Amino acid sequence: MKLILIGLGTVGRGLLRIFHDKRAELESLDGFRPIVIGVVTRTRGTLYHPDGLEIERLLSLERLGDYPDTPGLERGWDAERIVRASDADALVEASPSNFQTGQPALGLCLAALATGKHVVLANKGPVAVAYDELREQAKQAGRLLRFEGTVMAGTPSLRLGMQALLGCRIESARGILNGTTNYILTQMESGMSYDDALAQAQALGYAESDPSADVDGWDAAAKAIIVARALFGKHLTFDAMQVKGISAITPEDIAFARASGERWKLIAEVSRDGGSVPPVRISVSHPLAGVSGTTNAITYATDLLGDVTLIGAGAGGAQTGFALLSDLLEIYTDSTSR
Amino acid sequence: MKLILIGLGTVGRGLLRIFHDKRAELESLDGFRPIVIGVVTRTRGTLYHPDGLEIERLLSLERLGDYPDTPGLERGWDAERIVRASDADALVEASPSNFQTGQPALGLCLAALATGKHVVLANKGPVAVAYDELREQAKQAGRLLRFEGTVMAGTPSLRLGMQALLGCRIESARGILNGTTNYILTQMESGMSYDDALAQAQALGYAESDPSADVDGWDAAAKAIIVARALFGKHLTFDAMQVKGISAITPEDIAFARASGERWKLIAEVSRDGGSVPPVRISVSHPLAGVSGTTNAITYATDLLGDVTLIGAGAGGAQTGFALLSDLLEIYTDSTSR
Repeated sequence: MKLILIGLGTVGRGLLRIFHDKRAELESLDGFRPIVIGVVTRTRGTLYHPDGLEIERLLSLERLGDYPDTPGLERGWDAERIVRASDADALVEASPSNFQTGQPALGLCLAALATGKHVVLANKGPVAVAYDELREQAKQAGRLLRFEGTVMAGTPSLRLGMQALLGCRIESARGILNGTTNYILTQMESGMSYDDALAQAQALGYAESDPSADVDGWDAAAKAIIVARALFGKHLTFDAMQVKGISAITPEDIAFARASGERWKLIAEVSRDGGSVPPVRISVSHPLAGVSGTTNAITYATDLLGDVTLIGAGAGGAQTGFALLSDLLEIYTDSTSR
Repeated sequence: MKLILIGLGTVGRGLLRIFHDKRAELESLDGFRPIVIGVVTRTRGTLYHPDGLEIERLLSLERLGDYPDTPGLERGWDAERIVRASDADALVEASPSNFQTGQPALGLCLAALATGKHVVLANKGPVAVAYDELREQAKQAGRLLRFEGTVMAGTPSLRLGMQALLGCRIESARGILNGTTNYILTQMESGMSYDDALAQAQALGYAESDPSADVDGWDAAAKAIIVARALFGKHLTFDAMQVKGISAITPEDIAFARASGERWKLIAEVSRDGGSVPPVRISVSHPLAGVSGTTNAITYATDLLGDVTLIGAGAGGAQTGFALLSDLLEIYTDSTSR
């Protein structure tokens, strides 16, 4: 399976690391053998080789420019050209999310579908901003669009709702969908100030240098939009949601909640009526109260089963890399069974 | 899709109720239209009609003998004859579990596979006792064997482990897999005696009149055996497991645990080294401590994602009926995509 990888940050490298470490195991799954023919970074250039790039070398490079010259290697192609001119089977989008326009990832995804490639995303932007357009383009092209890694990293929240619960009606979803804010709130529970907890989250790589998408609730809102659209066809936009972050929560708020046997959590909620992302005080005995650190959780309210809750990692290179892998495996299995 | 249903208790009726209530919705899923051509009960006789039985009538009958005469209806055939002589696409096994021999269900399942039918089970006996034999027979016949309903009712615990986590290595599983004992322990937490809690569980239909399979831990052990075999290929038998029930737990034990900030739970554990079902005292802040009543939970320890926990209904007619439905939908999708 020939792939183009957009983005070589934590997630892109996480996927390559799995390809490298699990090579034999993956090949035992019906012969799945990923070949990365293109790599695109925002500021560090691109690489393209129609026969495939060496994964071990990509993982060890400081800069793409250090990749050794080989016959057929192209260094100067831009992302669009690699997508359009190559015969890749799938595009893997693992660059940072843009919640305003979804670009430049959205354009690349549409170009990939238009030229007959499947598309797999960990990037939330295009899915949150242009789900319908992507869906329609995929349908017209007869190609698959998968985005498990956009919600709860590799913890299979979308696969649970879309496949394992098929036949149930999902009425609503509610959960802790942002690892950074949950980490900060957990640290504040143990006495840290908001600023110190944020600084620690940044030092550990959980929060970006500009943390606003996380702490102001937009990242959780994007995930809520994706869940609502993919699982119960509810069309939501950022504008239509009440979104509030955690930056105004003080140590006094935390202490006050604790004295009442409660804990602050940033909860994303969506139903067929709409959605919101409010910081909420919940009882310490509530199932979501025990979800701490960067762990995420989602509860689906269903007609036949009642509540179904999934708890697991909400971030991380290996974890989100696994989401991309499982989407690719699904596409691979689908295409080999035809 | 033509079906034979073995067992018309809570689970069998739960499935028929879904067929009835969701007829239009199911037909919108690629045209899935279940036709029940045979129904087998242990003590109330059998019905067989090659063109299908009326589901609404089956649901309203007190006794199968009250089903109206129609041309082609057979009332006297035994289960084996219906399985062998009919052209059903799948056998649905929803009769009570026998943990000693798996019979009579095991024989029927093997006969169904041998005559080219897919097999779907909520009955734990055959899977716990003869997984390898069933698997091999299914492979030889080129038919599918599915058993989501044997563990955590319709909460998709097996589908999560076998499909959604494909590509991860599952090292071990640990959870609350028996609803009856968890209900009893939850009631004892609020001050009830063991005997009163058991009587209440029986009155509510959670526990059998002979509750030993539940309270002595064998039901949880059967589920642990199924999880270990299906998810990480570990062959376990009842004899090889340390299994202890909850009947010796006293109100004093409960009070003593509570004073230490702990709670009793019957925990099933399996790893590549073996398995056990012990009653365990866990901290009230432990994620499994909040799983109360008949709710079940399972935590998979994986290499790439760390712990992944699923929480949901562990029993019930609609819930286990949904498990059977989702297995049938998978078989249907698989056969229509070929």
